[in-house]
Amino acid sequence: MKNLVLGIDIGGTNTVYGLVDVIGELYYEHSIKTKYFETMSDLIQSIKNDPEILNQYQHLIGIGIGAPNGNHFTGTIEHAPNLPWHDTIHLQAITESVFNLPCKITNDANAAALGEMLFGNAQDLKDFVTITLGTGLGSGVIVHGELVYGHDGFAGEYGHIRVVADGRICGCGRKGCLETYVSATGVTRSIKELSSPNQSTSALVQLSNPNSKDVFDYADKGDPFAIEIVDYTAKMLGNALADFTCFSSPKAFVLFGGVANAGKDFQTKVKQQMEQNMLTIFKDKVEIRISSLQDKNAAVLGAAAMIFHTKKSV
Amino acid sequence: MKNLVLGIDIGGTNTVYGLVDVIGELYYEHSIKTKYFETMSDLIQSIKNDPEILNQYQHLIGIGIGAPNGNHFTGTIEHAPNLPWHDTIHLQAITESVFNLPCKITNDANAAALGEMLFGNAQDLKDFVTITLGTGLGSGVIVHGELVYGHDGFAGEYGHIRVVADGRICGCGRKGCLETYVSATGVTRSIKELSSPNQSTSALVQLSNPNSKDVFDYADKGDPFAIEIVDYTAKMLGNALADFTCFSSPKAFVLFGGVANAGKDFQTKVKQQMEQNMLTIFKDKVEIRISSLQDKNAAVLGAAAMIFHTKKSV
Repeated sequence: MKNLVLGIDIGGTNTVYGLVDVIGELYYEHSIKTKYFETMSDLIQSIKNDPEILNQYQHLIGIGIGAPNGNHFTGTIEHAPNLPWHDTIHLQAITESVFNLPCKITNDANAAALGEMLFGNAQDLKDFVTITLGTGLGSGVIVHGELVYGHDGFAGEYGHIRVVADGRICGCGRKGCLETYVSATGVTRSIKELSSPNQSTSALVQLSNPNSKDVFDYADKGDPFAIEIVDYTAKMLGNALADFTCFSSPKAFVLFGGVANAGKDFQTKVKQQMEQNMLTIFKDKVEIRISSLQDKNAAVLGAAAMIFHTKKSV
Repeated sequence: MKNLVLGIDIGGTNTVYGLVDVIGELYYEHSIKTKYFETMSDLIQSIKNDPEILNQYQHLIGIGIGAPNGNHFTGTIEHAPNLPWHDTIHLQAITESVFNLPCKITNDANAAALGEMLFGNAQDLKDFVTITLGTGLGSGVIVHGELVYGHDGFAGEYGHIRVVADGRICGCGRKGCLETYVSATGVTRSIKELSSPNQSTSALVQLSNPNSKDVFDYADKGDPFAIEIVDYTAKMLGNALADFTCFSSPKAFVLFGGVANAGKDFQTKVKQQMEQNMLTIFKDKVEIRISSLQDKNAAVLGAAAMIFHTKKSV
């Protein structure tokens, strides 16, 4: 009998869930609108009532959930600005009660790191960091083969490390956070905020509401301002990763998400900038990898990985 | 029969060693000049020939060594600019051969963190970071009760995280590293490099070769420029610790070394600056502690702690 884990990725807009086996095969996947539900209980109950999930219930050994600000230690979601419910949500307790099965939760970026280690491009690594370049910049830190949760469950907030003094205003209320430069939102901001002589003549700027994907598309076509933005983004990221190496000395940073998909050229530039700024003892040791789960549902796989991964240290 | 560990702290100027028991009592301590010896073998042999060490040899269960750039994984010292021997030194192999006992090595900052956890002011913590404020700024990172070594043994180089773009030139060849501001050397540099209207009238500046201790002494006496330097140092450190919290979410930063001894006022200012710059989810959670091993030989205790601490994850 095949053991399956239900992996759930709760996002501000969509909640995606699927059934995953021990080698990371995804058997079923479905997406629902998070805000459609009045309470978290309703959302979890609706997933359980999905006929495909009910059909496989006998094979389920647990539920792993990745959610914004999901806390592994308390099993709750706290202060998640993108979710429709703002109180503390006892997600683990709710889910265990609905399914009568063990549940583990963490934030989406941590789940992505576990997914990469169990099923993705970091299966050979025990020390690495995943950098998720989506709307924001998320990070999941693996040290000696275990996820770093920190004393409160919230470790690995690399997107909110400030890289420019008095820099761009961040949604967190501070200034100069890495994610205001390096994320889909950050790249889009650069269209307006990066001053350059090429800006006024760029076809990119003429688009109505250009986004980060447009930047990479126009850079591919040779638009000088778009190329400048790509270079600037790679520089900001590579420069930051050089400093971040001083924390856990990872063997690799694994990039994931829309911006990471920008291509080989972006990856090469990030690596160059990182090496140029690297402390001597770390030079030529740290790889930049691109996630191999890009086309798969990494968040669902990562959430499921929590159940399959035997935690030794926590 | 009492089990003892020989703890050795190898520094550029002095090498200090002592006999330590399982509760951190130091039975014997001695200091020798590192540069007096032609080879590392000579130095280790000399320690073994110390009559006090020979007398206790039967009680020894191992040797722990903290050394600049000491690598836990390879057992070697690599690229240590302050030591008289510049090739790769096979310190663990040399020591095991001389003593015929197991030896473990790491760098001095990592050893200090283990010492704090086993014998010092972090015995109640599983997630913390020690910041050693000596000539440079060293750090040792504990995550889930284990030292973070990283993929190559060199994790925890917080002193070389850059905090000012294009800032002070650092011995590492880069600019703006935290230790160029926050360390005994950094504080001394501020006497010349911190521009202030109070500088020209400060009695501190009139001293021939004033050092960091002078800065703290003059600040205590009310010298406005010295107070400004203390505030500036606390600001740079507190500000950086706010960002460093985003790595491992430690329960505390434990400060150690001469600058940390500057008093309650310095500690309070560091805490204030950290809180002012902290990401909301970490606010009012992270403590600033001062090492309780300040008056003891923390480096020797820390080196010995490596042997007493059962490593689970490496």
